[in-house]
Amino acid sequence: MTQIPTFSAKQIAKFIEGVIEGDPNAMVERFGQIDQCPEKGLTFLTDQKYAHFLYDTKASIAIVSQDFEPEEPVSCTLIRVKNPKKTFVTLLQFYDELKPKRLGISKQAIINKSAVIGQGVYIGDGTVVEEDVEIKDDAKIYPQVYLGNNVSIGENTIIYAGVKIYEGCKIGNNCIIHSGAVIGADGFGYIPDEKGALTHIPQMGTVILEDDVEIGANTCIDRAMLEATVIHKGTKIDNLVQIAHNCQIGEHTVLAAGCGVAGSVSIGNHCVFGGQVGVKDHVKIGNYVQVAAQSGIHRNVRDKTKLIGTPAMDATRGVKALGSLHYLPEMLDRLNRLEKEKEKEKGEE
Amino acid sequence: MTQIPTFSAKQIAKFIEGVIEGDPNAMVERFGQIDQCPEKGLTFLTDQKYAHFLYDTKASIAIVSQDFEPEEPVSCTLIRVKNPKKTFVTLLQFYDELKPKRLGISKQAIINKSAVIGQGVYIGDGTVVEEDVEIKDDAKIYPQVYLGNNVSIGENTIIYAGVKIYEGCKIGNNCIIHSGAVIGADGFGYIPDEKGALTHIPQMGTVILEDDVEIGANTCIDRAMLEATVIHKGTKIDNLVQIAHNCQIGEHTVLAAGCGVAGSVSIGNHCVFGGQVGVKDHVKIGNYVQVAAQSGIHRNVRDKTKLIGTPAMDATRGVKALGSLHYLPEMLDRLNRLEKEKEKEKGEE
Amino acid sequence: MTQIPTFSAKQIAKFIEGVIEGDPNAMVERFGQIDQCPEKGLTFLTDQKYAHFLYDTKASIAIVSQDFEPEEPVSCTLIRVKNPKKTFVTLLQFYDELKPKRLGISKQAIINKSAVIGQGVYIGDGTVVEEDVEIKDDAKIYPQVYLGNNVSIGENTIIYAGVKIYEGCKIGNNCIIHSGAVIGADGFGYIPDEKGALTHIPQMGTVILEDDVEIGANTCIDRAMLEATVIHKGTKIDNLVQIAHNCQIGEHTVLAAGCGVAGSVSIGNHCVFGGQVGVKDHVKIGNYVQVAAQSGIHRNVRDKTKLIGTPAMDATRGVKALGSLHYLPEMLDRLNRLEKEKEKEKGEE
Repeated sequence: MTQIPTFSAKQIAKFIEGVIEGDPNAMVERFGQIDQCPEKGLTFLTDQKYAHFLYDTKASIAIVSQDFEPEEPVSCTLIRVKNPKKTFVTLLQFYDELKPKRLGISKQAIINKSAVIGQGVYIGDGTVVEEDVEIKDDAKIYPQVYLGNNVSIGENTIIYAGVKIYEGCKIGNNCIIHSGAVIGADGFGYIPDEKGALTHIPQMGTVILEDDVEIGANTCIDRAMLEATVIHKGTKIDNLVQIAHNCQIGEHTVLAAGCGVAGSVSIGNHCVFGGQVGVKDHVKIGNYVQVAAQSGIHRNVRDKTKLIGTPAMDATRGVKALGSLHYLPEMLDRLNRLEKEKEKEKGEE
Repeated sequence: MTQIPTFSAKQIAKFIEGVIEGDPNAMVERFGQIDQCPEKGLTFLTDQKYAHFLYDTKASIAIVSQDFEPEEPVSCTLIRVKNPKKTFVTLLQFYDELKPKRLGISKQAIINKSAVIGQGVYIGDGTVVEEDVEIKDDAKIYPQVYLGNNVSIGENTIIYAGVKIYEGCKIGNNCIIHSGAVIGADGFGYIPDEKGALTHIPQMGTVILEDDVEIGANTCIDRAMLEATVIHKGTKIDNLVQIAHNCQIGEHTVLAAGCGVAGSVSIGNHCVFGGQVGVKDHVKIGNYVQVAAQSGIHRNVRDKTKLIGTPAMDATRGVKALGSLHYLPEMLDRLNRLEKEKEKEKGEE
Repeated sequence: MTQIPTFSAKQIAKFIEGVIEGDPNAMVERFGQIDQCPEKGLTFLTDQKYAHFLYDTKASIAIVSQDFEPEEPVSCTLIRVKNPKKTFVTLLQFYDELKPKRLGISKQAIINKSAVIGQGVYIGDGTVVEEDVEIKDDAKIYPQVYLGNNVSIGENTIIYAGVKIYEGCKIGNNCIIHSGAVIGADGFGYIPDEKGALTHIPQMGTVILEDDVEIGANTCIDRAMLEATVIHKGTKIDNLVQIAHNCQIGEHTVLAAGCGVAGSVSIGNHCVFGGQVGVKDHVKIGNYVQVAAQSGIHRNVRDKTKLIGTPAMDATRGVKALGSLHYLPEMLDRLNRLEKEKEKEKGEE
């Protein structure tokens, strides 16, 4: 239940190019899910299976598909559109844009004089900006952020409270980085001496996030040893993900929470990884690859492959294999029985 | 080995309603584990199998079960109680309460004037409190915490250093949130365009932690899209756990470190999850469910089920199945042999 | 591509005791990987299979093995050494040492008067140092760090931005702790009452990091209940790792990202853990143990064992077992067929 500025069905229908059915003056002042929408609520129905919630909703307005046929009377105003889900997202974005924008540079931020700061920038309390940092127009840096030497932040990018960005990392335009994310910590590289004591290999590279990249809370993206760990344009990484040094993550790829990608891995464009997937170092993964949650990938993967399991199998086979696991104890029994019968037969011969 | 205020066996026995055996004036000034307790130490024996440590301990006092029968002479003072473990926890709590309480609001905290702050509150250095925040009586907010607009913190709740709580999240009474936890970052929701570029769906909801909830270090609890991600009363979540948007986690449930719970999952009351468990989005899990570490749950789960494995199996079967995995290569050999013999037989016929 | 102070082949060869082949006056001002090294770049060849990159590199200098025999003409200057990888690390360390060292105590740090601070120490903006903290010579504490009461930081140790160290924890000499790491949060210990409500067991112990320990970004190391969680000398822990209360992690051991080690586990010296490994509570693991990524260990492990899988198997067997998983659906079919034939035979008898 989210409070929003008040609008009428008429105003909303006009904005989303929908067709009103019911009272055009119905007013809404909050969003709500179809199953729990309160009074004066604006809700939406994307899936026919939830239609029963609509018949006794308290909502004032529901956005439905243009070909939705109610099986019972509906008391709220309907607005019919082509694609209710997409329309609803458009509305959410519209309302999101109405929120007051943060602006201005806090006197409680600690900003080195060398910083080059654009127009419309916000820098919050307690944020530390080190030497030779560039912050471009309309970037929003929340409180308690750390920007190391030579960091650059692109236009319109949002860095939430407490993000730490190490020296030299480059963040593109329209990026979002959530609290606790760490960009540019040292890659995990060691060289052992004769006795097995480990010496840290200095990590002299950096991290580059291209435009439209989003990074979840407490996610870590390590700096490269020499060059750059790169997250390419439009890629979205969820919370608590590990991207090790020297990785190249392609464009418009999605990694769900808890994934761990080891060093020097390359992942293609338009891939989708479920949660808690692991990828071995130096593996190359193609484009449009889909990986089920908790899989473990230890070999190169071709374009458009679907994978599941550890070690990752082709999804069709893998689903069967993992499903068969359940029968393994019985299989063992059956095998024992067959062998015993065979023995018996032999004895009889 | 933890330094504590000095007490005598007599004082302690009175407090815990135990029966002294040995010197009632034995003094203790620290805690210690039974296997390494130093001089003037207070230790406890909960499990008979560790009794041998007692016979040559340097401890001054040991708390033991009322029916403990030593097999060798014991030099330290014994205090006999009904339930040594529970009694020991009571003692730890007693000593914990003796620690000086943090109090007062640091001048180095950055607090918006609109904040409503109760009695007995502590707010540490560098903490940022944004607009319209409410902090109730006896809440302890450590340094470098971020409380976004409209956040509320319940009575007696402890927020450790560096926790980030986004706009609008509500934290109940007697909660504990450990360092680095991120409460209320955006849920991971995107809508693709025709070309596969992803647009962020604004997450307009919030997070609610009910009373007595504890959240581990660097754990992430994402805000809901429209309503609230809720952690119900008394639930304890360990470190580095991911709770995605729209989840409902029941009462008195325990999630160990590294779990990942995808979007819109509901988990019941009194459940216990081992570490690194993954749960698929929209899954519904009943009450009193127990899940072994590293399991992957992709279907709804009934009350009182015990689960293990990926995909999660009933525990009795699953333990056998995972145990049989070990024999899989041999099974393949045996199957080959049986088939070969069969072929041979056929050839002979 | 990392900018570095300019040196000639002659200077470098002297420093690394190498033999020049080509122009001794070739100058380098950056590092580069063999496959993408820019002009004026210094690169290295450790593996013959990448030699083809050398024949058309723009690099000015390449460090190669003393017995490297090029199959095509090489335009850049070669410096021949015994062990190119080790030499290259030596060079990286040399250049790393040339970076200006941070020094001085920020006026924007908030330091309790009781602090004992050595020579050559750096304390960054917004760092909070509570009561009775000791910071030894040449320690570097970046901005926004939190050091609780009675924390001590050893000589030459680096604590990056935003690290949180709870009360009483002891950090050795020459340690490195990366951003977002949380040292000393409460162990996850609860005692249930009759109704299943959980009471937190106070965690009165601490955390000790011995010398030369490195901790990755957003890693959590919980304090012990009574004694100390200890990370022994020289051990390196990657990002997003969970070390629970009372654990003892041996010397010169490596834990890759995403590992979760439950309470009271002991791990030996010189072990290597892949990513996302889980270890059950109270398990004892010997020395020189190697564990494949995503394994789950629930039993004690002897010295020098190699493990893979969940539950963890001896690696030789485990690799076969996990590989066989793939054939499980077919095995089931074959077993069905054999049984059917057997039935048929019996019918015929």
